[in-house]
Amino acid sequence: MKPRIAIDMDDVLADTVGKFIAIYRRDFDTTALPTVFRDNSFHELLEKDVYKRLTDYVHEPGFFADILVMPGAIEVTQALSEKYDLFVTSAAMEFRNSLSEKYDWLDQHFPHIHWKNRVFCGDKSILRADIMIDDMPYNLVSFQGKGLLFDAPHNRDNTIFQRVLSWDEVAKELL
Amino acid sequence: MKPRIAIDMDDVLADTVGKFIAIYRRDFDTTALPTVFRDNSFHELLEKDVYKRLTDYVHEPGFFADILVMPGAIEVTQALSEKYDLFVTSAAMEFRNSLSEKYDWLDQHFPHIHWKNRVFCGDKSILRADIMIDDMPYNLVSFQGKGLLFDAPHNRDNTIFQRVLSWDEVAKELL
Repeated sequence: MKPRIAIDMDDVLADTVGKFIAIYRRDFDTTALPTVFRDNSFHELLEKDVYKRLTDYVHEPGFFADILVMPGAIEVTQALSEKYDLFVTSAAMEFRNSLSEKYDWLDQHFPHIHWKNRVFCGDKSILRADIMIDDMPYNLVSFQGKGLLFDAPHNRDNTIFQRVLSWDEVAKELL
Repeated sequence: MKPRIAIDMDDVLADTVGKFIAIYRRDFDTTALPTVFRDNSFHELLEKDVYKRLTDYVHEPGFFADILVMPGAIEVTQALSEKYDLFVTSAAMEFRNSLSEKYDWLDQHFPHIHWKNRVFCGDKSILRADIMIDDMPYNLVSFQGKGLLFDAPHNRDNTIFQRVLSWDEVAKELL
């Protein structure tokens, strides 16, 4: 049996931070530099009420439908499929509307990962796999296998888990 | 930490066989006796084309929205919650339309199980728990904990797993 990798969606397969940057520039500040939001978390940069108004967009129908694919995610997951059993594991239960949008998004961009290998959950400690790639340290804390922390502005303070900066780095680590 | 139970939806929390019986009586044979379908599987009773036409209803929008709750499921899961950490684990990924219907159904009937403890998946071997209650033997085969086979017309031939006939029996076994 191939070793199993549980792969997160938001900010791992999908560039969700990029979507928030686009909305912020559209609705709050057209002059904002995207690089600033790649280097610092929204939480650090924005005032409380603006942060809340921005993150509330996750509840809007369509929010998850058109997020861009993270660079390299398609090619590297295709290559990883040869050697590993890949599961997409998303904490989608928090947002009811996200379920069908995420489902269609995976159909569109990741048809090489079978629907049998999709998991929409809440608490990820229910998952059993050998490796987990996630941008949220608390998901890796409860995981019993090897955790890889996918670099994101909101996890830069974490020094506990092995960090991967990109899908290229995931490929170097696992292929 | 409380022991964890992974609980299936269709034909465990939800009386999905009952829904099929109602559709069969409505569309194919108004005189059919429900007890016959409780004692024998659709697969045994129906001709191939009728079986296919009946089971194709799972793809209809609304199919999963109004399925009745299995007798005792609410009361017993409420009682189990005191002693166990309950996760609802449904192989919902097969049916895209089922996702939001199952989500709302759980909100309606099982609000005592938090959304963090819901899992919609395909292949259940990705789950880690101590006990699994399921009507499908193949889900129990790949499970590493203790499996309880929830009795259903389509699993009567299985003699490998410990069978529970009802939620009352689950209570007797686990409480």
